[in-house]
Amino acid sequence: MEQARQGRNVAVFIFEQVEPLDFAGPFEVFLAGSNRGQDFQVYTVAEHDSPIIALGGLSINPAYTIANCPKPDLLVIPGGWGSRKEMNNETITNWIREVSDDIEIILSVCTGALILAKAKLLDGLKVTTNRSAIHELRNVVPTSTEIIEEARYVDNGKIVLSAGVSAGMDAALYVVEKLLGEDRAIEAANIMEYDWKRD
Amino acid sequence: MEQARQGRNVAVFIFEQVEPLDFAGPFEVFLAGSNRGQDFQVYTVAEHDSPIIALGGLSINPAYTIANCPKPDLLVIPGGWGSRKEMNNETITNWIREVSDDIEIILSVCTGALILAKAKLLDGLKVTTNRSAIHELRNVVPTSTEIIEEARYVDNGKIVLSAGVSAGMDAALYVVEKLLGEDRAIEAANIMEYDWKRD
Repeated sequence: MEQARQGRNVAVFIFEQVEPLDFAGPFEVFLAGSNRGQDFQVYTVAEHDSPIIALGGLSINPAYTIANCPKPDLLVIPGGWGSRKEMNNETITNWIREVSDDIEIILSVCTGALILAKAKLLDGLKVTTNRSAIHELRNVVPTSTEIIEEARYVDNGKIVLSAGVSAGMDAALYVVEKLLGEDRAIEAANIMEYDWKRD
Repeated sequence: MEQARQGRNVAVFIFEQVEPLDFAGPFEVFLAGSNRGQDFQVYTVAEHDSPIIALGGLSINPAYTIANCPKPDLLVIPGGWGSRKEMNNETITNWIREVSDDIEIILSVCTGALILAKAKLLDGLKVTTNRSAIHELRNVVPTSTEIIEEARYVDNGKIVLSAGVSAGMDAALYVVEKLLGEDRAIEAANIMEYDWKRD
């Protein structure tokens, strides 16, 4: 656990056909863990400055684009059907690889792992994803990457990966614990009245 | 359990300073439970046709307004800081009371219960809300309303109420079970990789 410091920027990447809970779950966790906005500033970021239509037709206006967003300290990469397109969008995979140099933690949720794989950030790591996407992930990681099928989330230091959809909340709580301590993560879970599934 | 029928409309009401997970959690549940869109059509609805800024700055474009939305079969009333304003917005409480006549189920999440209370829909019912808002709810319900402090969700037939934030997902899964059967609710939870907390 690091000393708490003020004002980490948490960028939540969103894209067409993102799974709603994949991004909204961690968004809520970092909000609940923010100590009235002091410790985390959470915002959405997309490739372009136009509404993003998530799965089910939920329309979100990104707060920023990748060209103008505040420098992220944490980056959340959610999954969902559209991750199969974004994983092949080099503008996005290049941007993620670039910001990853100076970033504290990247958290992938669900099939967000596919995007990190194509950004070549998973080489030699232990990784996980949605239970139904294990084979897809295996197809895009090198043999040095170990896929953990049973984990709720996996921590590689800078890169944390969660299993499917709701597991993103558990992994985000784990990130709050890692940065601000267990009490703060439990407090965030309590605010959400959420039963944190810890690995 | 009723016979499954096609195409229930699920209106998710959103408003300024709504709690993100309060609306996005049930939105995700009805999406996961929709059987590829056949059984539930989920959409957001707001008072006006302009972006809604949820807690934390999340900006959502409502799919419909209360003036033009498809007739809801199910209505989700989330909570959040802004529910204290909406509970005193008679345009909204009148609309909810009007649509409630023909509706199958209204599900309140968290402090969404305050809005239902001011719509005078909780008289004589067993109700619940966010743990931290029990006293607020007590102040706006008649003595005929029984407040259950320990429940994850409470079913009164047409009106189902959940505890805080994440409990909305558990209550939404319960509504899926009630309408389409236990197998379908478990399937939805599995798609979300979510550990359904049942009462």
